[in-house]
Amino acid sequence: MGPTSAIAALQQALRCLPGVGPKSAQRMAFHLLERNRQGAAEILATLDNALKSVRHCSRCNNFSAKELCSICASPARNPELLCVLETPADLESVEQAGIFKGMYFVLMGHLSPLDGIGPDELGVRNLIELLETNAINEIILATNLTVEGEATADYIGEIARKRSIKVTRLARGLPMGGELEYMDQGTLSQAFEGRREY
Amino acid sequence: MGPTSAIAALQQALRCLPGVGPKSAQRMAFHLLERNRQGAAEILATLDNALKSVRHCSRCNNFSAKELCSICASPARNPELLCVLETPADLESVEQAGIFKGMYFVLMGHLSPLDGIGPDELGVRNLIELLETNAINEIILATNLTVEGEATADYIGEIARKRSIKVTRLARGLPMGGELEYMDQGTLSQAFEGRREY
Repeated sequence: MGPTSAIAALQQALRCLPGVGPKSAQRMAFHLLERNRQGAAEILATLDNALKSVRHCSRCNNFSAKELCSICASPARNPELLCVLETPADLESVEQAGIFKGMYFVLMGHLSPLDGIGPDELGVRNLIELLETNAINEIILATNLTVEGEATADYIGEIARKRSIKVTRLARGLPMGGELEYMDQGTLSQAFEGRREY
Repeated sequence: MGPTSAIAALQQALRCLPGVGPKSAQRMAFHLLERNRQGAAEILATLDNALKSVRHCSRCNNFSAKELCSICASPARNPELLCVLETPADLESVEQAGIFKGMYFVLMGHLSPLDGIGPDELGVRNLIELLETNAINEIILATNLTVEGEATADYIGEIARKRSIKVTRLARGLPMGGELEYMDQGTLSQAFEGRREY
């Protein structure tokens, strides 16, 4: 009845997308089949191509089309500085800010035992190998300031300290344009604690 | 830099989905490529299949795998009653309620001049042909109670009246489980206006 089984199967498949429940999946399937077959064809082509061509950089673990991504292959980057991030999107933000000229390691997530994501899933073994086979002066922990991000930073910080590498974490405080009135208590107390001579 | 052009192309393609902006598209692409390649393969297969196999029923305009959908092909349905709806999802809801045994016509949308959706895009020509070539006693306007749904109902009601067909619209009032405290003024005034002897 109603939609054919082909549509039901498509709706079911779309539900694997993050944040997509049964109603959104239904709306998406309707949109793709009725309003935008051109867009649907583009999703087909680009997803197929991405699944076939995208793999991980053997050094930094970020998505890459080649064995070494363009950042790791660049002679202009400082190999003594290593910034550890959670996702390619985080790396993208840092690159866009243009303030960091060292190398990266992308964990592709954070420690989350309940979801079955432990050190092995984050490629920590590759990170350790990187730390042991390269002359790295400083490791900058740039995981998110969430519970999971902090736990991940603690874990990796420990690994680096054992190998006598200097460990730093991004500063915390008020964001640019931040108004005290709307800041949460945690941010405010970090901002006071970390206050600097002016 | 950062993600390869294959990922950028996938992100761009995903933005054609309703309610998906650049950030969601980025999250979806990451999820598909890093966390759920199985799910991505299922989207590929089911979307490809749906694009190839899904077309419109020649009678009711709903999605169908065959020339006539299962409802239009069923001898158990009353062809003298025609319920006009906006989307396949609306039809699905009515079917699940199990209270209607007539036939349907699915507009696949509503009148929306600003989006370039006029009578032609809604298959109104097919609807008129249906009204003129079949003995239909009553047309039930079951478009949504939104501005666009009402305008669409007005338009189709006019067409049916011109052909001396009885036109009805779904009752309006409090929904089941509705609490007066939380009802909007429009619903409340409709509920008072349409009050019935008890």
